[in-house]
Amino acid sequence: MADIARLSLNTATVRTQWSLAQCIDGCVRHGIGTIGPWRDKLRGLGTEQAAKMITGAGLKVSGLCRGGTVTASDKAARQAALDDTRKAGDEAVALSADCLVLVVGGLPDGSCDIAAARDQVNDGIGALLDHARACNLPLAIEPLHPMYAADRACVNTLAQANDICDDLGDGIGIAIDVYHLWWDPELKAEIARARGRILGFHVCDWLVPTRDLLVDRGMMGDGVIEIAKIRSWVEAAGYHGPIEVEIFSEGDWWRRDPDEVLKTMIARFESVV
Amino acid sequence: MADIARLSLNTATVRTQWSLAQCIDGCVRHGIGTIGPWRDKLRGLGTEQAAKMITGAGLKVSGLCRGGTVTASDKAARQAALDDTRKAGDEAVALSADCLVLVVGGLPDGSCDIAAARDQVNDGIGALLDHARACNLPLAIEPLHPMYAADRACVNTLAQANDICDDLGDGIGIAIDVYHLWWDPELKAEIARARGRILGFHVCDWLVPTRDLLVDRGMMGDGVIEIAKIRSWVEAAGYHGPIEVEIFSEGDWWRRDPDEVLKTMIARFESVV
Repeated sequence: MADIARLSLNTATVRTQWSLAQCIDGCVRHGIGTIGPWRDKLRGLGTEQAAKMITGAGLKVSGLCRGGTVTASDKAARQAALDDTRKAGDEAVALSADCLVLVVGGLPDGSCDIAAARDQVNDGIGALLDHARACNLPLAIEPLHPMYAADRACVNTLAQANDICDDLGDGIGIAIDVYHLWWDPELKAEIARARGRILGFHVCDWLVPTRDLLVDRGMMGDGVIEIAKIRSWVEAAGYHGPIEVEIFSEGDWWRRDPDEVLKTMIARFESVV
Repeated sequence: MADIARLSLNTATVRTQWSLAQCIDGCVRHGIGTIGPWRDKLRGLGTEQAAKMITGAGLKVSGLCRGGTVTASDKAARQAALDDTRKAGDEAVALSADCLVLVVGGLPDGSCDIAAARDQVNDGIGALLDHARACNLPLAIEPLHPMYAADRACVNTLAQANDICDDLGDGIGIAIDVYHLWWDPELKAEIARARGRILGFHVCDWLVPTRDLLVDRGMMGDGVIEIAKIRSWVEAAGYHGPIEVEIFSEGDWWRRDPDEVLKTMIARFESVV
């Protein structure tokens, strides 16, 4: 099983219950050494104050979620999206995050042309790389499950993400989330291909049945994903960094006492991940 | 746009409203020449009577949906599944269907090993081929969307289906459903690779947002799938057979007057497909 020291709390796991300050306190209380914040959690405090609190509590930051929605229906909207991702990059730097996680966007409003959207992704990330390299901030493409191709991200396989990295060169890597990629018959081969560019590893579980496309993700061990097997492939590809637990769960974990969520998360990390 | 003579009514499109007899009458009334029945619709009449009625009405049968759930947790269950699919094959023959559509099954109960499930699929379909070849009945693997990998079908890309066909030789082909495959960056290339083995083409649309994993599919033109583009690829690969409209829609089309559903389906087929 994975070393518990690698556990990182992605703040989405307790999205509805806790502020960032409460997440930080919760990590300290439960002995979790790393946090993966979403930007919405930074807003209340401001990035500088958030960075101070995280550092002051002795925590490290894995990835900052998220920038990178670079698909848009016109130039002004694309420019605004790029500017916002650069700002997210500055926040990630201020937090000393390992990387900025990119969720690249789906089809632009009014468009059905997914090939064109995918071209926009290559162009958009390419346009972000100068800034990211200047900041020494790795950008991590997160391929999302194909069920999000239309509305959230048109990068839906690890093969696509690897292709983008091949195209764009240094400064860009990949965040691997088992929820999005577990089904892919090419997963083992594409993880091996991703050697040297894996910037993050996210875990949760795929529930059967899954009742909602977005917010019915499971605690590790409650679903069907072979998490430990996939982790072994990721480690064989050279990644030994933080393992973020990121669970969107409107009907279950978001309704529970967050201290219970963290206790369960730790226990499952030790028994299942 | 596609020739309206190719339109086939998949009975799932009016699953909740009409019996098979009503579907047959509806096709005749609306000038639709081909039907794609689900097995549940045959049960009331019996296969022989259904075949007589379909033929008597001057209709052809595209694919029979569905057999092929060959993944199972023990030998007895696998044998029962194979026997049931052979029975479905006999029904398809009695109906003079173009093919029997196979939905191969997901993870066996209690298993998380998707690679093992996929091995079962190759073995299971292989075990069905003697019977299918003896009946001169083509079997059509239908790859399902990755969101069904756990519970319905662990064949989730056209590449996988092509690989299975490469492995197993004559008698096995593929049913291409735009709903399941539209997101795949390799779709165009894999359709070209499927030349000579495309046995069916199913259309509906991907709604944004999609509110349910199974029963929130859209009428052609209401979603984001580039249906005509995909059809052109399928035709370039040599398929010019029936185009089935198959829409699972609990909240919308299954609640409407079925004659309105068929009218809309015909109009959209002519304007969108």
